[in-house]
Amino acid sequence: MQTDLSAALDIGGTKIAGALVDRHGRLLVRTVRPTPADQDGATVLRAVAEVLRDLTAHPDWARVAAVGIGSAGPVDASAGTVSPVNIPGWRDFPLVAEVRLLVGDRPVVLVGDGVAMAAAEHWQGAARGRANALCMVVSTGVGGGLILNGRLHPGPTGNAGHIGHVSVDLDGDPCPCGGRGCVEGIASGPNIVRRALADGWRPGPGADAGAAAVAAAARAHDPVAVRAFERAAQALAAGIAATASLVEIEVAVVGGGVAGAGEVLFAPLRQALRRYATLSFVRELAVVPALTGTDAGLVGAAAAAAQRSRLDAFAPMG
Amino acid sequence: MQTDLSAALDIGGTKIAGALVDRHGRLLVRTVRPTPADQDGATVLRAVAEVLRDLTAHPDWARVAAVGIGSAGPVDASAGTVSPVNIPGWRDFPLVAEVRLLVGDRPVVLVGDGVAMAAAEHWQGAARGRANALCMVVSTGVGGGLILNGRLHPGPTGNAGHIGHVSVDLDGDPCPCGGRGCVEGIASGPNIVRRALADGWRPGPGADAGAAAVAAAARAHDPVAVRAFERAAQALAAGIAATASLVEIEVAVVGGGVAGAGEVLFAPLRQALRRYATLSFVRELAVVPALTGTDAGLVGAAAAAAQRSRLDAFAPMG
Repeated sequence: MQTDLSAALDIGGTKIAGALVDRHGRLLVRTVRPTPADQDGATVLRAVAEVLRDLTAHPDWARVAAVGIGSAGPVDASAGTVSPVNIPGWRDFPLVAEVRLLVGDRPVVLVGDGVAMAAAEHWQGAARGRANALCMVVSTGVGGGLILNGRLHPGPTGNAGHIGHVSVDLDGDPCPCGGRGCVEGIASGPNIVRRALADGWRPGPGADAGAAAVAAAARAHDPVAVRAFERAAQALAAGIAATASLVEIEVAVVGGGVAGAGEVLFAPLRQALRRYATLSFVRELAVVPALTGTDAGLVGAAAAAAQRSRLDAFAPMG
Repeated sequence: MQTDLSAALDIGGTKIAGALVDRHGRLLVRTVRPTPADQDGATVLRAVAEVLRDLTAHPDWARVAAVGIGSAGPVDASAGTVSPVNIPGWRDFPLVAEVRLLVGDRPVVLVGDGVAMAAAEHWQGAARGRANALCMVVSTGVGGGLILNGRLHPGPTGNAGHIGHVSVDLDGDPCPCGGRGCVEGIASGPNIVRRALADGWRPGPGADAGAAAVAAAARAHDPVAVRAFERAAQALAAGIAATASLVEIEVAVVGGGVAGAGEVLFAPLRQALRRYATLSFVRELAVVPALTGTDAGLVGAAAAAAQRSRLDAFAPMG
């Protein structure tokens, strides 16, 4: 039997998804459970086990070479543990060891969800064929992952590319992470809304006050809404330029709900990038929308598993 | 004949140094010429040729496997060209092609001077044995280089690790690079002096107004001098923490003249780092002084050559 598939798990605060993924990135089998995020750790694990049971029961399971897990962070790939902010029942939870008990003698690879998204964009999306790229999700939070030298760079603990908590304003507002002036504290959806509301923007009657509503107002040339997106774009540009100066990237791929604003975000982002990315070796840096959608976590976890399992059998003991 | 040596060139605005370096990092032969930085490009090249002639005339030259060049930046390793800010006669100057004409059929590797320093610290200094490290020079400017996955990460153009022009203050002062709020604009020696002078510090009679004088004043508890170093430390900490969030490093090595201030810099730097490096995977990050001295450029160029020549024969055509 050819082992030409990866199994993928995408673990978030809302749902736990699983899939069998072929070497073209197609999802052959998929399954999902809601995350019992307010329950104890064992209950959350049972939901993972149910997702895995759907996969292992499938006839194609025998073709699975490796298992990839993309998880909400923080994760610790070196220890095989996860401590997702939105799943309080899991703190330093030995997820890799637990999953290994359920998948037989296969390598299990753990990465953060930002790293998984980067793997997906490199394999199937806007970073395809790029040797050096930053891929970001701008949504409720701001996350990311890096491609360096043509390969995923998860870092020792699977958290590299964590651009949301890069400080771009060293005297700026305190961030829940403990730092100051973090990219996420300026550019995330809720923070775009916060700034727009503080400056006097109000959603229309019956509309909710989300980043999509601010984006709609900006498209209609509401100056406060435009400025809120410009400020987010400025923070993202400073963070992207910092990444380019530090590791040399040729493209920044931006996905997530806030990127759905389209040119309302991308136009000021490109403009701001010209102000921060000024050195000769970063000046050509392009910024483009992500192409992978809601399956990015699964596709990326599969890609991370495939890449790692070609290198070595990565199997930390719990 | 065993080819167990690297030849190294260290090209700066003041001097052009050359050496033959063995696989323990020892300099067997060394030579130096002043850089005729205000002359035309051909004259600067003649100084390089004289340095190389001293090396090729030596009986050990036959043992040289590869040639490494560390140059003041910007460099473009992919094109084999250099455009050092302080050598105006060289703009997109095809240094690799010119050096190849003088060294026979040997691979020639070009990296920026910050990358060379990082290679030296990884091989012989405070980053030895570390898989992931940022090595920085804080001096007239602020430069650096990265070790990732146990190897030098020069980036496609040899400029990676360029922490001096990471913006840590997105609304901050304009930088000559075109950006705003760059680390170098706050933390370099001249900028420490500028801040101290602006806040009322004055050098003693007959003393010159350099960063070393501000450091001496800070050691004597002059509050203005202390604050100038604290501000520099804050900017360095934000940049180091950004690097750690983006690529996961376990240590930041700081060298250069300003690092010579010792605890006047390192104590507030460690303190500030605790404020900016807050995520679980960056919290253990250590910051330590560099161990390689004035030979770092030569040792690092040799290390870069040795590393690259083991991988492939890197020989861009001019």
